[in-house]
Amino acid sequence: MIAILPSAADPCNLPFPLKNPKEPAMSDSGVKFQPRESIEQVEEGSDLAPKFDDRGLITVVTTDARSGELLMQGYMNAEALARTIRTGEAHYFSRSRQVLWHKGATSGFVQRVRELLVDDDQDCIWLRVDVEGGASCHVGYRSCFYRRVPTGREFGATEVDGRVDLVWTDTEKVFDPEDVYGDAPNPTIL
Amino acid sequence: MIAILPSAADPCNLPFPLKNPKEPAMSDSGVKFQPRESIEQVEEGSDLAPKFDDRGLITVVTTDARSGELLMQGYMNAEALARTIRTGEAHYFSRSRQVLWHKGATSGFVQRVRELLVDDDQDCIWLRVDVEGGASCHVGYRSCFYRRVPTGREFGATEVDGRVDLVWTDTEKVFDPEDVYGDAPNPTIL
Repeated sequence: MIAILPSAADPCNLPFPLKNPKEPAMSDSGVKFQPRESIEQVEEGSDLAPKFDDRGLITVVTTDARSGELLMQGYMNAEALARTIRTGEAHYFSRSRQVLWHKGATSGFVQRVRELLVDDDQDCIWLRVDVEGGASCHVGYRSCFYRRVPTGREFGATEVDGRVDLVWTDTEKVFDPEDVYGDAPNPTIL
Repeated sequence: MIAILPSAADPCNLPFPLKNPKEPAMSDSGVKFQPRESIEQVEEGSDLAPKFDDRGLITVVTTDARSGELLMQGYMNAEALARTIRTGEAHYFSRSRQVLWHKGATSGFVQRVRELLVDDDQDCIWLRVDVEGGASCHVGYRSCFYRRVPTGREFGATEVDGRVDLVWTDTEKVFDPEDVYGDAPNPTIL
């Protein structure tokens, strides 16, 4: 997914130097991550020892803290995760622009973190957020997920030669993308 | 993410032949995907035209349809997505085992899909599911996300030299992993 992108490169786009440190490592914003030493430590312990992939990124799932709605799915590098923890506001890493991205810097739709959770093997972050203005999607909808695919019996009842149409679950845009982003390039890649 | 893995390889582990087809493509299980032709089509149209990454995978976010709780984050290849749509039961692709994976085949905790949504640029799937037995995490918890990281003011109030401890949000396992998986290898990778 990609939601709202910054209009200008953030100068603080250097990746945290150690993807998966062998000893405790401090981010530029003063948050320390622990090295990953055992499955028991990672799954059952209280150490924050996140796993970053080959690109230095960790997957992030962001839901609305009140409604439970899935707003977006993005990525953080280590510095984005550290800043989110330090500030309580969601920071991501934009893969298309390769920059650290303080969500809402352009659009004003800052995500305030109510709860930040980590999964069993610590390779995924769940953010439960409040969104000022209530929009998270660059197309203009509240959530990036505004269309559903019929499944199971409904698929069987509506398919034509294996094809079904998407069904809108949200038809009302909360902002006009042109007003907010002007002629900035669309982040969607075909 | 990794939640419950199959105990044996599924014979149907061949990836759907075309990652991002240039013309309508039919999966083995009879679900058709459309080629990605324009941003307007992908973002604002009713065509199901999912984007698979270099590995042939699409990111999946799975939440409990009743509580809104995030249960797990995983991946599908094209055939897993097609089978999920066709059957109404969640299928994933296990990266560690490189096999198609019908969730619950080993554990019995099948995920019945209440709603399958796709995001703006169609590179992420959101599954809203009912889980039989109520468990999705191989460690034994209901959700893979059973620990939180203090953020913002709470981080500032509790950090010691940049370090904070994870805080448990769920302390009760709903099953004993040894009973369910025996001595199968743990999927967590350090």
